[in-house]
Amino acid sequence: MKVVVANAEVQDMVVVMKEGATQAQVDAVVAQLHEMGFDVHRAAGANRTVIGAVGAGHGDPALIGVRDGVHEVLRISEPYKLASRSFQRENTVITIGDVRIGGDEVVVMAGPCSAESPEQVEATAVAVKRAGAKVFRGGAFKPRSSPYSFQGLGETGLRMLSEAADRHDLKLITEVMEIAQIPVVEQFAHILQVGARNMQNYSLLRELGRVRTPVLLKRGMSATIEEWLMSAEYILSGGNMNVMLCERGIRTFESYTRNTLDISAIPVVQQLSHLPVISDPSHGTGRRDKVAAMARASVAAGADGLLVEVHCDPDHAVSDGAQSLFPKQFEQLMGELRIIAPAIGRSICVEPVARRGWGR
Amino acid sequence: MKVVVANAEVQDMVVVMKEGATQAQVDAVVAQLHEMGFDVHRAAGANRTVIGAVGAGHGDPALIGVRDGVHEVLRISEPYKLASRSFQRENTVITIGDVRIGGDEVVVMAGPCSAESPEQVEATAVAVKRAGAKVFRGGAFKPRSSPYSFQGLGETGLRMLSEAADRHDLKLITEVMEIAQIPVVEQFAHILQVGARNMQNYSLLRELGRVRTPVLLKRGMSATIEEWLMSAEYILSGGNMNVMLCERGIRTFESYTRNTLDISAIPVVQQLSHLPVISDPSHGTGRRDKVAAMARASVAAGADGLLVEVHCDPDHAVSDGAQSLFPKQFEQLMGELRIIAPAIGRSICVEPVARRGWGR
Amino acid sequence: MKVVVANAEVQDMVVVMKEGATQAQVDAVVAQLHEMGFDVHRAAGANRTVIGAVGAGHGDPALIGVRDGVHEVLRISEPYKLASRSFQRENTVITIGDVRIGGDEVVVMAGPCSAESPEQVEATAVAVKRAGAKVFRGGAFKPRSSPYSFQGLGETGLRMLSEAADRHDLKLITEVMEIAQIPVVEQFAHILQVGARNMQNYSLLRELGRVRTPVLLKRGMSATIEEWLMSAEYILSGGNMNVMLCERGIRTFESYTRNTLDISAIPVVQQLSHLPVISDPSHGTGRRDKVAAMARASVAAGADGLLVEVHCDPDHAVSDGAQSLFPKQFEQLMGELRIIAPAIGRSICVEPVARRGWGR
Amino acid sequence: MKVVVANAEVQDMVVVMKEGATQAQVDAVVAQLHEMGFDVHRAAGANRTVIGAVGAGHGDPALIGVRDGVHEVLRISEPYKLASRSFQRENTVITIGDVRIGGDEVVVMAGPCSAESPEQVEATAVAVKRAGAKVFRGGAFKPRSSPYSFQGLGETGLRMLSEAADRHDLKLITEVMEIAQIPVVEQFAHILQVGARNMQNYSLLRELGRVRTPVLLKRGMSATIEEWLMSAEYILSGGNMNVMLCERGIRTFESYTRNTLDISAIPVVQQLSHLPVISDPSHGTGRRDKVAAMARASVAAGADGLLVEVHCDPDHAVSDGAQSLFPKQFEQLMGELRIIAPAIGRSICVEPVARRGWGR
Repeated sequence: MKVVVANAEVQDMVVVMKEGATQAQVDAVVAQLHEMGFDVHRAAGANRTVIGAVGAGHGDPALIGVRDGVHEVLRISEPYKLASRSFQRENTVITIGDVRIGGDEVVVMAGPCSAESPEQVEATAVAVKRAGAKVFRGGAFKPRSSPYSFQGLGETGLRMLSEAADRHDLKLITEVMEIAQIPVVEQFAHILQVGARNMQNYSLLRELGRVRTPVLLKRGMSATIEEWLMSAEYILSGGNMNVMLCERGIRTFESYTRNTLDISAIPVVQQLSHLPVISDPSHGTGRRDKVAAMARASVAAGADGLLVEVHCDPDHAVSDGAQSLFPKQFEQLMGELRIIAPAIGRSICVEPVARRGWGR
Repeated sequence: MKVVVANAEVQDMVVVMKEGATQAQVDAVVAQLHEMGFDVHRAAGANRTVIGAVGAGHGDPALIGVRDGVHEVLRISEPYKLASRSFQRENTVITIGDVRIGGDEVVVMAGPCSAESPEQVEATAVAVKRAGAKVFRGGAFKPRSSPYSFQGLGETGLRMLSEAADRHDLKLITEVMEIAQIPVVEQFAHILQVGARNMQNYSLLRELGRVRTPVLLKRGMSATIEEWLMSAEYILSGGNMNVMLCERGIRTFESYTRNTLDISAIPVVQQLSHLPVISDPSHGTGRRDKVAAMARASVAAGADGLLVEVHCDPDHAVSDGAQSLFPKQFEQLMGELRIIAPAIGRSICVEPVARRGWGR
Repeated sequence: MKVVVANAEVQDMVVVMKEGATQAQVDAVVAQLHEMGFDVHRAAGANRTVIGAVGAGHGDPALIGVRDGVHEVLRISEPYKLASRSFQRENTVITIGDVRIGGDEVVVMAGPCSAESPEQVEATAVAVKRAGAKVFRGGAFKPRSSPYSFQGLGETGLRMLSEAADRHDLKLITEVMEIAQIPVVEQFAHILQVGARNMQNYSLLRELGRVRTPVLLKRGMSATIEEWLMSAEYILSGGNMNVMLCERGIRTFESYTRNTLDISAIPVVQQLSHLPVISDPSHGTGRRDKVAAMARASVAAGADGLLVEVHCDPDHAVSDGAQSLFPKQFEQLMGELRIIAPAIGRSICVEPVARRGWGR
Repeated sequence: MKVVVANAEVQDMVVVMKEGATQAQVDAVVAQLHEMGFDVHRAAGANRTVIGAVGAGHGDPALIGVRDGVHEVLRISEPYKLASRSFQRENTVITIGDVRIGGDEVVVMAGPCSAESPEQVEATAVAVKRAGAKVFRGGAFKPRSSPYSFQGLGETGLRMLSEAADRHDLKLITEVMEIAQIPVVEQFAHILQVGARNMQNYSLLRELGRVRTPVLLKRGMSATIEEWLMSAEYILSGGNMNVMLCERGIRTFESYTRNTLDISAIPVVQQLSHLPVISDPSHGTGRRDKVAAMARASVAAGADGLLVEVHCDPDHAVSDGAQSLFPKQFEQLMGELRIIAPAIGRSICVEPVARRGWGR
């Protein structure tokens, strides 16, 4: 199904003229707006003229903004369509087998940064399942800021992750870094992750619009919420409606934590969009000792899910060890989250495994 | 009590020389460090020389950083002393009558942005008390970004706030904007608030070190955690040890919310310092519909208290109406917080008033 | 002269309703805008209603923004009046004796961070005069981020600076940190400097509106251009029209330089306001070896003046030595600036001293 | 030639223990550093222990940073090698026919955002050549933030750009967005541009390391200088040593300009690296009326080249019209730059065309 969006480029706007703009300047703006195809409404105030441009026009508001006599151009419609609550009022719930993301339950996805060995993958899968995670996370293709760092085990790693996930009845999420990797990753994973650094890799996003596997789209380090939703729009407009968003920390002047996890983005996105919002407190802080506090805060703020790095032996992890929880810490966190979730009418998985003795 | 700090200016540092720095350049750095009074340790590696400078020296690390042959200077001790956990291992608990800030209970401070009239003050005080607040907040001297905006009722407003607080057995917190206001504000308030814009008004901070009334120091909009603790140090070093810190949102590129409430600052400050940390979700978001989510997140992350704007009639508030909660919203929030607090072993006031029928 | 501003609070705005907003929601917004005193214009588009509010109303746009059915509120007039080009079309030129700031000549202000001793002050004054500076800068009351750092020599320092300036026919600029210092500083200085950390110390700004000595207002580390102009408005609205603005670097995520000097703010402010714009490349970079490049860039971008730290012996400066130029570096810089200024139709002081053999 | 880097991952570091750290904690850190392969030097100060780790070890400093008793870990070597001045002391000069980038001449690259039609391409090429540009810029594959916007003419556009460049003896620079486009773009262009949004698209960077065509790597909107150099390292480490860097504005809180052009990055990068640095004042400001000021500032600060958008008819440009200069504005700018460049000992192309009557 290819979704057709009528008037996808419509960009209603308001043009505020400078005080003292001449009639000729006003007329020139009106003429250009007409040329762009807009319906134009003029309102001459005491001090200045304001021009509304609505309807089927299209064109670049910035182009009007640099004309003589123009004080400012204000855009009055958001540029994303399919991602907006205006397009779909009810929450999107993404169903993968018995896991429902965006519903009443807060879905916890946990696992190591990278697949390193069958033993490490298995031990970590056991630990996260036992504590109540529903989705297993782990990387096989790793985007590393240094070309000299470990780049992941590739397909071998994918296979390890997938087998462990299957053994423990977990779904699998893993990252896809380039177009050529999509087919192989799709074979193994239930959710394709797009990393923060690729949030505006439009070629990749367009391809992901053509598949039907759910996609988790991380927010770029310095992406506004609007840009993030525009990137989701790339995938949605290709016809893949199974998109979830993941807040993972933005770049600010504060350098104590690796990033500043923008918890307020969670309720903001839930208001602007119908897509589920996941929080990643591991990358959001970069420090193991801050992960639990931010995971609790995310759930208290209403996150639909968490993406948490857990490693069976973080001190010897090949990557991201410093922000990976020990299995024991993850268990304790899950207990805390089970207390918090009901405060906002939600639950966190209470599993058969729990009944078999969770927490001991 | 005037606290004496030995070696207050000690600034241990590590000087990293460039690869290929000459012996003469190394010697010149060592000589300058000696001149500054440091003990100097040299370590010549394969590629570069590293020089450690510790002890009773003092001087500006930046001065070394611009010398020829120097790659970088790394400071290895934090510049705040009295505010640090190294100075005092146990949490500071500030006691005001029967209210203990920094202890097991999460203390909620609530009230209007500004005192506007006796009726508005009274109605709001009744509402916040009923829901469980322990401290009444309200402004009489208002820092406004426009010289043409309402600037507060001054001493008249202070009196209104104080009388309402007394009638309802609430403590009072209010802002002090300049040195000359300290005596009159101290007469009425239990806690003196320093606003974000005055966080580095060192003249004001120094004066507040001379009083004994507790001070709530808001984080500047773009202050690092270290700068914030340094401002606390100004007050502490004057002898006033009753300082609490208040996170109220930092400035980032994201403009959907007025500021980005840096929830991660809560656990970070609690690790670096013994001072209580309060969170202000009202200024942190600037939008009423996001306040509850961020208040819950703050408590889940471990905040020692909250500062929340509540108004008996927000639609007609003279200032900050858009971020003020309706009394009903505040009551509901308090109910949610009571569920969350136990997840981290804390409580939120369950008052006699609650037993008299709170929230039902 | 006290300037009276008619309708100072007028805040024209456009209210964009959500798609699907009900008629009742639209009516409620219109009613509240009427209550605020606005003239209201409705424009019902195909998908949504847009409401213009202009005229003599006043009130907080944010209050409308949180109403049900409202998508966004767009403010369409800048909140500063006296500082804007709409209020005064021609450039403000501030005349101090034979120095004209904001005119054709780029005025260079130079000198040490702090007055330390009569010898240091004298030697530095000689050097900056010789190279062509017109104004001497130097601090006597120093805002330091640590309470344990050197806080300046106070009135003694002022006297040293003033005497050296007089001896060399230089004007004097120095910082005033609090209201109580204004009278004494006014006695010695030709320009009162407000530091970045005090940009929103409204009590201080209001007092500076009452004096007639010119004021240099530094941009706060995280102040938007609009906030900066609003702070200027505080001074202007008190009747002191001799205000110049000083860009000194903003806080960003990049930490290699101490701040990021926002050169683009120079032409932007010159478009929005009639006030002169000075650039401070010393605080803007924090590193001596980057000062010259940024000073040149500032002049090339059109700055009306420079504020540069120069010290006769930077390696032994009590404060800011790392960002202070050696006299020789300053001389070389002045030579480079004399080449650049004509590219934009301006000049840099070519002094009698130059004829006595400057730089050759 | 495949460059081999010995000890590429060596990450010398200093570990600062907390005051009061136990001997056991110190021993555990030392043990882990040994396990990582480092040579370890201990220095026990009065208050705390500092541990230096140098040599052939490798591992993640963050992993040490979260250990008990550790206050902080300071990295003391930059993670980029081939891009650093330590690796190559002299400037890299990239030679493309008679154009030398990184030499004495400031190389100006100019042209439209996108190729739109043969007429538009030709008219713009004529204009930029006439004014003195040496390289023609123009896009055929466009990264657009909206999936509904014009995406470029693809290979047809490439051909137009290439033919116009050839006709006017200009070199061609154009963007490559994905791996699959490299072969076709290489066929037509002399310089491959990597856009800001792809700065950390490591898959693409790695492929560009395998070609020999020069690459212009734009700085990501929120990339630190170190991260930018690390991305260059990806290309260099593949064996393609013809890399130039392009500053195009970073994201800050200030929203008046689209980005904040970080002029100070120019001298900083020139100090840290031997690679040429280009400045893009068009994307750096997003507004035509600010481009000239920032272009002048960039040259004054020492940029090795400029990348400027020029369009024969900006008002009807399909993309980026608001930031494109009119040909007349570009000519005037080139005249100003010719005055500025000598201030720093450089020149800007004075062409045969100039002798044929440029500027009249």
